[in-house]
Formats: sequence, C-alpha cells, structure tokens
Amino acid sequence: MADQLIIFDTTLRDGEQSPGASMTKDEKLRIARQLERLKVDVIEAGFAASSNGDFDAVQLIANHIKDSTICSLSRANDRDIARAAEALQGANRARIHTFIATSALHMEKKLRMTPEQVLEQAKQSVRFARNLCGDIEFSPEDGYRSDPDFLCRVIEAVIAEGATTINVPDTVGYAVPELYGNFIKTLRERVPNSDKAIWSVHCHNDLGMAVANSLAGVKIGGARQIECTINGLGERAGNCALEEVVMAVKTRRDYFNLDLNIDPQHIVAASRMVSQITGFVVQPNKAVVGANAFAHASGIHQDGVLKARDTYEIMRAEDVGWSNNKIVLGKLSGRNAFKQRLQELGVSLDSEAEINSAFARFKELADRKSDIFDEDILALVNDESVSAEKEQYGFVSLSQHSETGEMPHACVVFTVGGKEVKAESVGNGPVDASLKAIESHVQSGAEMVLYSVNAISGSTESQGEVTVRLQNSGRVVNGVGADPDIVVASAKAYLSALNKLHSKADRVAAQG
Amino acid sequence: MADQLIIFDTTLRDGEQSPGASMTKDEKLRIARQLERLKVDVIEAGFAASSNGDFDAVQLIANHIKDSTICSLSRANDRDIARAAEALQGANRARIHTFIATSALHMEKKLRMTPEQVLEQAKQSVRFARNLCGDIEFSPEDGYRSDPDFLCRVIEAVIAEGATTINVPDTVGYAVPELYGNFIKTLRERVPNSDKAIWSVHCHNDLGMAVANSLAGVKIGGARQIECTINGLGERAGNCALEEVVMAVKTRRDYFNLDLNIDPQHIVAASRMVSQITGFVVQPNKAVVGANAFAHASGIHQDGVLKARDTYEIMRAEDVGWSNNKIVLGKLSGRNAFKQRLQELGVSLDSEAEINSAFARFKELADRKSDIFDEDILALVNDESVSAEKEQYGFVSLSQHSETGEMPHACVVFTVGGKEVKAESVGNGPVDASLKAIESHVQSGAEMVLYSVNAISGSTESQGEVTVRLQNSGRVVNGVGADPDIVVASAKAYLSALNKLHSKADRVAAQG
Repeated sequence: MADQLIIFDTTLRDGEQSPGASMTKDEKLRIARQLERLKVDVIEAGFAASSNGDFDAVQLIANHIKDSTICSLSRANDRDIARAAEALQGANRARIHTFIATSALHMEKKLRMTPEQVLEQAKQSVRFARNLCGDIEFSPEDGYRSDPDFLCRVIEAVIAEGATTINVPDTVGYAVPELYGNFIKTLRERVPNSDKAIWSVHCHNDLGMAVANSLAGVKIGGARQIECTINGLGERAGNCALEEVVMAVKTRRDYFNLDLNIDPQHIVAASRMVSQITGFVVQPNKAVVGANAFAHASGIHQDGVLKARDTYEIMRAEDVGWSNNKIVLGKLSGRNAFKQRLQELGVSLDSEAEINSAFARFKELADRKSDIFDEDILALVNDESVSAEKEQYGFVSLSQHSETGEMPHACVVFTVGGKEVKAESVGNGPVDASLKAIESHVQSGAEMVLYSVNAISGSTESQGEVTVRLQNSGRVVNGVGADPDIVVASAKAYLSALNKLHSKADRVAAQG
Repeated sequence: MADQLIIFDTTLRDGEQSPGASMTKDEKLRIARQLERLKVDVIEAGFAASSNGDFDAVQLIANHIKDSTICSLSRANDRDIARAAEALQGANRARIHTFIATSALHMEKKLRMTPEQVLEQAKQSVRFARNLCGDIEFSPEDGYRSDPDFLCRVIEAVIAEGATTINVPDTVGYAVPELYGNFIKTLRERVPNSDKAIWSVHCHNDLGMAVANSLAGVKIGGARQIECTINGLGERAGNCALEEVVMAVKTRRDYFNLDLNIDPQHIVAASRMVSQITGFVVQPNKAVVGANAFAHASGIHQDGVLKARDTYEIMRAEDVGWSNNKIVLGKLSGRNAFKQRLQELGVSLDSEAEINSAFARFKELADRKSDIFDEDILALVNDESVSAEKEQYGFVSLSQHSETGEMPHACVVFTVGGKEVKAESVGNGPVDASLKAIESHVQSGAEMVLYSVNAISGSTESQGEVTVRLQNSGRVVNGVGADPDIVVASAKAYLSALNKLHSKADRVAAQG
C-alpha cells in the first residue's frame, strides 16, 4: 500500500513574505478557499503574532475553511504561541508551527544565544504549545546547515515534549538532492523517537533545485510532508512550487509510490489567482502553469504531437485545469449563466449583493467588449473583491491626450474619503501624467518600484491588467487595476496601491 | 585535480524553438556575443538545414565568434549534415550535432522506422559528418525513454564511427535525478568504447527538475557536458537554466568538484538581453536572475542580512552581475561616457555610425527623462539594432485621446516601404485604437496573442517597454518597442512585429 504524502501550502505565509507580495485579508481568504478546493492538507495562513493584520487573516481563514488544517507560524516563545492559538480558535483542525534557528551562524549572529539556550527554549515552547493544541509542528530554522549532533538533540527533545511534525528547512536554498535526502535519512535514523513524528521538508529555490530536494527528502529521507507554495512564490528565488512537486509525484508514481489528496484540476486557477493578487508574473516557460508549459496551449501543434500526443507530452493540460480559453459569455448572457461560470471557475462570492455588483460590472464590460473570456471574469471579480473593502481612494473618471512633440496631459477625477477631487498633470506619457495628477493631490511620497501591464486574454482588445508596486518607509504594496483602457487601468491600480499603503499595518520579519 | 565541465548553450537553437521566441539573425548575433563574453564553451547557433534564415544565422555567428565552439544541429541525413558543415565553414572551432530518435514511441509514431533502420541511419550519418568535421555530437532523441539495450548498441556504433560527444536527452522532461544519473552511469558502464567520447546531458523542465537532473547526470553518471539555455528558455517548460546550473556547480564546489570556464559576471546582462529580445519575462522569484533572487535587490534588507550577510545569502548578487542600478548618465553626459558605459554593459556596436545613431537617441531620451538607467541604455541599443535592419514599416508620429464615457481615438503616421501614411481608428483604449489604426491600413490579418508592458526601471517616469506577439498562418513573432509614452511604445512594438512577420522565412520543426 502506498504511503500518504501531506501537502502543506505556505503561499499565505512564506509566499507573502516576498517583498511586494503582501495581500489583504480578503485576498488571503480567496486564496485559502482555492487551496481548500485543491484539497491541500495543511494551509499555513500566516504568522498571527507578527501583526494585527496577520492575526485577523489567520482568524478569518480559521473561521471559514473547514476541510484543510489551518496553521499559524509562531516564534518559540509563549506570547507568539498564545496568539497563534487564539487566532486558530475557530478552526476545525488547527496546527501551531513554532520555530527557532539551530545553525551556529544563525544562533550566534541572529539570535545571540548559546546552543543550550536554544535547546531549552525549543523544549519549553513545544511544551507550552502542546497544552493549547494537539497538532504541533517544530522547525529548526536553517536546519540543513546545522550541526547534526546538536540538531538530533533538539529534535529528540521536542518530539519528547509532544511535537507531532518535524520540519527540516533548507532556509537558504543550499542543498542538493542526494545530500539533503541523506541528511533527513540520517536524522531519522539517529533520533531515537523519530517514529513518533511525521517528517517534513521545506526547501528554497536559490540554486533551482527546491522541487528535486524536497522529493529527495521524501524518497531517500522518508519525509511524508512537503511544504510548498503556488507558483513557487517566496522570498528570494522562492519556495518549492506546489504545482511541480504534485505533478512530479503523480506523473512518476512508478518511482515515488505515494498517494496525494490534491485535486490537480484546480492548479491553473490557483496559479492565476496568486499571480493576479500579488502581481508576480508567471514566466511562459514555467513548468505546469506557464503559458507555454503545454505545447497545445501555445496554439501551435507540432508534427510529433499531432501523430501521437505522448511523443512530447507526459502530462495532459486538462488534468491541471488548462481550458481552451473559449469565449464563454457575451452581451446577452444572463445573471444565471454568469453565476454558473463563476462556480465553474471556482470563484465563490459571499453574498447576493456581491454577485449583483460583479454582474453589473460584467454587463458594463460586455457593452464595450464583444467576447468575454474566463480571464476577464476573473479580473472583474478580483476588482470587485478589492473594491468591497472600505476604500480611502476611488476612481471616478479620466481624460488624457498625447501627441508626438507635445507633453502628454491628463486630468483625473477620484474620491478621497468619499469626496470627489479633480487633479491635472503633464508627464512623460499619458500613464505617467495620470499617476502624477493623482500623486499631486495625495502626496503619498511613495516610490514606484514596479509597473507592468498584461492584456488579460492576449490582445489589446481585451482588458489590460496593470500592476503598480509602491514602496514607502519600508512598506511595499501592490495595486492591481483592470480596464480595456490601460491608462484608466493604471490609474485604478495606483489608487488601489495607495489604499493598501493607507491601511497596511506594520509587521515583524519571520523565518525563511 | 578537478575535471572540467563543458557548458553547451542552446538558447539560439532549442530556446528559439519556443513558440514566440523567434529571433532575427542580428538578434542572434548579439546574444552569441554575450555568450562568448560569458565564456560558454559551445554555442549551438541554430539548425542550418531548417531554413535559409537559420542557415544565415549559423553562418553569421560562425564568422564572428572566435572563442566559443560554434555548433549546428542537423537531422541524421547527408543533406542536413552538409548544410550544417557549409554554414560552419567560417568558424574557428566547429561542431556538427546530429540526432535521431531511439525510443520505441518516437521510432514507430514519428519516424515510422524499425530500430535496425534507425541504427543504420545513425551510423551512416556520423560517418558522413566525421568526414566534414572533427567534432561530432550525437543525440539519441528521447534517449531517456529508450530501451537501454538498443540505446547501448546505437551509442557504441556511433562512437566507433567517430562521434566525440554523446548527448542523452530527456526530451520530454520525465526524469528524476536519481534515475537519470544512474541511467547515464549504466550506459557508460555498458558501452565498451564509452571512454572514447565525452558524455553530455540535455534535460527539459516539465516537472521542475531539469537542473537537478542535469547535475545528477554529471555527479552520478559521470557526464562532463551540460546543455542549457539562458533563463531556461525552451519549448514547453523550457530547458535546464544556464545561470542555475552554473551557480550550483560554483556554490557547491565542495560537492561537485568541477571546474568551469564561465564568467558569471555576465549572467544578469545575458538574462536581460534574452528576455528583452524574445519578450519572455523572467519571473521575480526566478533563481539567480529574478528581480527578487537576492534580498538586497528588492531594496529591503532583513534584520538577519544586516547582521551577517551569509545568514540568508549563499551567493553574492555582484558575482552574477547585479549592479545597484545607479543613475549612470544624464543630459550632460558626453559621447565618450556613453560609449564607455556601453562597454561596461557588455554591448558592442559594430560601427561608429551605429554608436552615433544610438547616442543621438540617447540625447533625445535625456531631454525627456532626467535620470538614465542602465536598463534605458540597453533598451535604446536594442531599439537601435532592430531598426538597423531594412524595415518595411517605420513609426513617425502619433496623437491620441481618451475620456471616460467616450470611445478612445488615435491617429498614427507611419511609413510603408519608405512612404508616409496616416491612419485613424477608435478602440477599447488608446493602445487598442492606435494598433487598430495601423492594422486598418496594413491589413496583416495577424492575431495578437500577447501584449505586455514593463517599465524599464520600475516607474512610469522611465521608458515603457512593450512586447507584442503576433501570430499569422502558423508564424509567431515578437515585436518590442520602447518609449516613455507607452501608447507610442505599443505602436512601435506593433510595427516591429509586422516587420518580422514581413521578413520571416518558413522553417521546419526540430528536436526537443
């Protein structure tokens, strides 16, 4: 009989720690719902003690998600652990994930603690956590670069205190598969009570080997949980990509012989949702979820593929949720057709009012654009759920003009705390002029660190989706806006980023 | 003493086969020059027999690149091989790379040949090639899924005929590191004359393990050549990424114990150049070359990194050519400063006339934009080298207007075969209106399959770089345009794509 492999998704915690990938709590809930549809076993929803915003997000997700275990990260101290337990109170199944660094470098330079102090703190924390929750995960941060003797002592001690999952992170992405697999194997062999816990792997992708390292930890090392993120989102080069590791285990079942709960049909929708919310693009040659990942998705059929599909394809695009991007709705589609398509796309809006408002936007879009694609609907709903929050700034209207040889000019009307204002500016281009107009009134002082546009369904006839990333006093936020007119979409994205900057709470740094 | 690992780059051949990544021969030469600066051992410049355009590109590169070996792919037949040899005549060091499929599936469904016929053709081809060139690489296509007994017979036979490199492709990206490494090891042990050839690996990334598989082929299998591409460009999920595999071997020299000729200082410039020319974005969380790959590149320093850099970083951003993106030039910079910066950026323009023309564009840009970044210079030179070709269509001027509640309108003046035309249109947005205006006159009938904009140095004050991908009768081309006004940049990109569509020759499909 095949063993079960547990998929632990940390898109909302480690993924969100990428500079620029921060999400609102409503966005996090939308992603958590998609992860639940994917049948992810454990969702790490955040780091409850790091900020009030993170606490609220963990709590919201714990209260709404019923099928997956909900986990909160916490440093190895009583205050953090108590906050995590509090945020998780509404969960059907809760897990507290506590960590402390065990490598000589991290203990000395970052923690400024001796190994004995670290060991003591790890034990105490797990003991305290175990009184609040039956499901406790412990991570020795920078575990792969830790002294194995010391690491074995720490792990043995925390299992004795009641830790049920032991996760060994390659925090800096330094591992290679053979060595990492053998490292986990050695730890499991040397720790006397190792069979009392499930072993887990957490790999970063700095050398491009996070997926292979994770799988070596499972195959060679005997780990039975993999920590990963949608699109491999995460600090620096990111984490192990859920979509790759899942499809590798499924495609090479002959080798891994492991069962998974994941329903891969929802992978592409999850990838798009995370990319859309964070503004982190997925490159076309990304495995599984990139636009070119399957030959047929590019619209070009090679001779070999036409003759026999498996000459070049080891997975089927349909299996991971690639549709043929058909025109699904138009001007004459009714509210029921719209609602049904939302369900097929895995989008659930909370109230009839939200559906009505999204449908009104859909009709407005259908008046301007003959063919409505799935991507348009997802953008529209995304736009909707952002605007459902209380906004400081809102878009009203825009006019702009540019002509070769003259300075482009824009005039933007928008609301500030419900009151309409009108602002004008010139700029290097019509987009620049529009954003300068807004900034001339708001005076946020924020620096723009990223600006990008993607046509939602490939051509400029479709809606343009603009991502604006602003940085101010160490905070980094993304704003996203969609409109068939990319100047308007840019103004909406800028206002959405300003709204996030306005509301975002400070937070402390977490582990990698 | 450490063995030498040969880096074989196939960005210009396997990379260019990605739908949408086709390049002009001048673009290919620019990339080849950058690969030479990187000290790539072997550059696969194309597939000479596939089209006249590919033949010309291989010939151009063979005539200009002196340090790297220049290679052409060819099917296993005399005509292809003779064309490859002809294209390579000007090379200092030439290699012919011939291939034929050896898996049961490919032989039966694609080639419709028996194994004995395939064996005979492989032998004949290598014999023929060896009379034209001393450096012969042979690839059994879909080698990893081939019957090992048959594969051993084929490899033994082609080595006996004079093949000097044996490359074992995982054509469909099906391998896992342990199995692939042992597959190569077994072949090397079982083929009696295996020591007469250098063994090579060629892995695809469909399951996200191309880098780890390639390295297992080297470490476990004993291969001493890795085939790879910049940014992991390539069909479907792409090939093994050069930047990842090189930095893994360098960072984990303790494990691999291999020497490399590569100078990693030129990696980031190579990545940007390939991304800019093909229009294939690099995701922020891409290892080594992604914008977030190094903590410091994001502008956010974590506490740990400030205390001790190596707590979170295993490589230094400077080592792979990340600069701090300083403001390098402005309005008052002279021609010499500009020329020197071009050299520092690794850009060599062929003639004084080209430098003069690029400098004129630089001054024009500096009039409109106060701070000129490295990225601006690279975009400007890119624009320049594109426009150096004979163009059917050229941009002259544009005026456009949009206002909430009205239909956006644009008027574009451009040249067709040297003659000015003026065209007007309305559209869903100012960009759509501008492109519709151009299309209303040109009537290419091409379908737009991708539209994206990136602000070259992060903010809308900088130039916008627009990529437009058009598809027409099975041809896919990219156009790139840069301008501070993204509507103008879009029109330039569209005209550049039309130029490529106008000139692009048909070509045959090659191996994966």
